Amino acid sequence: MGKTLLVALGGNALLKPGQKGTAAQHVQNVDRVAEHLANLHNRGFRLVLTHGNGPQVGNILLQQEKARDYAPPLPLHVCVAQSQGMIGSFLQEALYNKLHARGFRVPVVTVVTQVLVDRDDPAFSHPTKPVGPYYPTRDRMDPRWKVIRTVKGFRRVVPSPRPKEIVEAAEIRKISRQAIVIAAGGGGVPVVRERGLRGVDAVIDKDLTAAKLAEAVQADILAILTDVDYVYLHYKQPNQKHLEKVTLDELQKYQAAGHFPPGSMGPKVQAAIRFLQRGGGKVIITSLDRLEDAIDGEWGTVVTKNK
Amino acid sequence: MGKTLLVALGGNALLKPGQKGTAAQHVQNVDRVAEHLANLHNRGFRLVLTHGNGPQVGNILLQQEKARDYAPPLPLHVCVAQSQGMIGSFLQEALYNKLHARGFRVPVVTVVTQVLVDRDDPAFSHPTKPVGPYYPTRDRMDPRWKVIRTVKGFRRVVPSPRPKEIVEAAEIRKISRQAIVIAAGGGGVPVVRERGLRGVDAVIDKDLTAAKLAEAVQADILAILTDVDYVYLHYKQPNQKHLEKVTLDELQKYQAAGHFPPGSMGPKVQAAIRFLQRGGGKVIITSLDRLEDAIDGEWGTVVTKNK
Repeated sequence: MGKTLLVALGGNALLKPGQKGTAAQHVQNVDRVAEHLANLHNRGFRLVLTHGNGPQVGNILLQQEKARDYAPPLPLHVCVAQSQGMIGSFLQEALYNKLHARGFRVPVVTVVTQVLVDRDDPAFSHPTKPVGPYYPTRDRMDPRWKVIRTVKGFRRVVPSPRPKEIVEAAEIRKISRQAIVIAAGGGGVPVVRERGLRGVDAVIDKDLTAAKLAEAVQADILAILTDVDYVYLHYKQPNQKHLEKVTLDELQKYQAAGHFPPGSMGPKVQAAIRFLQRGGGKVIITSLDRLEDAIDGEWGTVVTKNK
Repeated sequence: MGKTLLVALGGNALLKPGQKGTAAQHVQNVDRVAEHLANLHNRGFRLVLTHGNGPQVGNILLQQEKARDYAPPLPLHVCVAQSQGMIGSFLQEALYNKLHARGFRVPVVTVVTQVLVDRDDPAFSHPTKPVGPYYPTRDRMDPRWKVIRTVKGFRRVVPSPRPKEIVEAAEIRKISRQAIVIAAGGGGVPVVRERGLRGVDAVIDKDLTAAKLAEAVQADILAILTDVDYVYLHYKQPNQKHLEKVTLDELQKYQAAGHFPPGSMGPKVQAAIRFLQRGGGKVIITSLDRLEDAIDGEWGTVVTKNK
């Protein structure tokens, strides 16, 4: 069998900046994703996919708010599950088609995935992740929500706890031996353990979940896709420098020096570090279009274990 | 290994008449579903679940319509995938909790499921299934839609083609050997084959899909749950008579005599007949609360192959 490659699709892979999220936009974007993934399947890689859901879950929350006098809004964690179904169906259809057009009869399966977080995670006392629409006043906002005020209006913020465990991990691993699996979309449906599992309103960082998923499926390579081709030092400064081949130690050193901002490259670097610390072999951080080159070591940032 | 039981949950199992579809209502209802299913797991049955999505997809369509000036509405088939994620997450959490509380470490997996329909199915020339909200005028309705006029306003109707094949059938069968699988919710995401697969706006009858799924997982028993305890002859007439044990031949005879109305018991009976004709052993049609009794042959309508 070939190597197992876990691909974490960035938001841009599904919707480009400015796109509102029509079906046609999704179909066009995932078609390009599927083309690249089919190339990798062709090269013998066993593929597992995960993806973001920011704009999609944003639309679902907006729709629920606008229709709240007609249909009850559902909790965020249920909206995440909805977005997994939605995005999974786009991806699985596109991939199935690309693969079958090339004569590959490999199945593609989307698994609705719950991710366990710790109810004592400090993130729960400090919600920071903005979700859903802006509100002109707080009147229509649930009084239990933590709310921030921005120039565009009031907005709900939710905790962003660390993923502890992928609830369906063992099953996803088994399925990945015989099918391409799409799992843990949007960082997963967050659940805490208290007697049983209970869904909670939070957003788990999708890159950190990707690292957990990569570990769960025993991936050889974790590929984190984003809108730039490389990880940079001194990003957008005159002395900006892109990273090609780095070791875990080097990356940690750069991280400690504050090179990677929390909202963008920070979580990707953190996910890379965790995967390598937990036994992973290689992490690629690059853009979708450069993924195949990066696998050949000819583009993108490639992080490996220390020598 | 125990027998494989495919349970098709009726709409009432997820939301009761009059319930608007809050998370609390779903949680309370699926808790009862999970209790019964845990009992059956305890008795050694290998469980595969499927379910309706009428009220849930109705809410999604309504939300999309109310927010259409803010977020693009998605096609019905994408909404079905959303509802599979939503309902799957409710069911898998509840089932996981019931099973784990009793010490069963069985995984529960929801698979986003596409169902192939024939683009030449006569249903496509005669859309009959009403979906989504009522509109006071046709102005805001997509001009490509087939629309009917009712006393409550205009309403979109979509085709209800027959399920031909469950795209992820082989994977669902494999997963069902080691986990409880929730699949093909809402009758499945309808797709036609033209070069590849392409999602189409249609509603596949969930009971007919359940029969296909039962065949795919080689179920020993197909249990179709509804809001009544039995299949009836002369339903709601003075000479109403409930059916206990019937053979396939007998059921077909009653069907030919017009005992089962198209909108309610008709598709369930049709699903029962198809499953038995394709090699299935036994079909139960009853209510959720009577399922265990029906398995013991003490309640509900039980249909078996001809002697």
